[in-house]
Amino acid sequence: MVQYSQARLDASFAALSDATRRGVLEQLGRADASITELAERFHMTLTGMKKHVGVLEQAGLVTTQKIGRVRTCRLGLLGLDEEAAWIERHRQLWDARFDALDRVVEDLKRKERVDGRKKRQ
Amino acid sequence: MVQYSQARLDASFAALSDATRRGVLEQLGRADASITELAERFHMTLTGMKKHVGVLEQAGLVTTQKIGRVRTCRLGLLGLDEEAAWIERHRQLWDARFDALDRVVEDLKRKERVDGRKKRQ
Repeated sequence: MVQYSQARLDASFAALSDATRRGVLEQLGRADASITELAERFHMTLTGMKKHVGVLEQAGLVTTQKIGRVRTCRLGLLGLDEEAAWIERHRQLWDARFDALDRVVEDLKRKERVDGRKKRQ
Repeated sequence: MVQYSQARLDASFAALSDATRRGVLEQLGRADASITELAERFHMTLTGMKKHVGVLEQAGLVTTQKIGRVRTCRLGLLGLDEEAAWIERHRQLWDARFDALDRVVEDLKRKERVDGRKKRQ
């Protein structure tokens, strides 16, 4: 289960690491599109766009269906729930660490004020 | 600005596309660690861990500092706010599309019920 999940995160984060592929996902969020339409919109060759769509499909972020000569792309059903959950969990850890650092800095400031007062006395 | 942001997302999503690098971020979320400590924890050679930390550092997710012979790694200040925002925006589009699909299905069901009733009359 964890193994599968890690492999899924590997594939989906890798798929998201390219501006064109993120653009394709945004585009398909608005409407389904054929590979040809996507290639035109992103000023790309058909071969180039097929590769990008292949990466998104492997990651489960997009599904495609060929009817006649046209391959239509739409968003996959998996969504980005796991990716969002991983980032959110990590941000909570991160925030907690910086909060702890803030407390250390506050403690140091307080100590300095006390020391300063003692010196003036 | 947008260009910078896209390059940043490219680098950070690529950095997140590896289970060991995600593990390193989780570990540094708990406590700073030296490269040696990270290599031991993830059963990896020093050279291998240095490469992973280099990728995280390039993406701005980790900073390192060398004092004497020890290079200490800690979480970078940038966090994952932009990545979380991109995923969240995308999930909203995604949800809206599936909601629209649900409405279409509901309409079809309603139409079917009405047609069924007409046929029975």
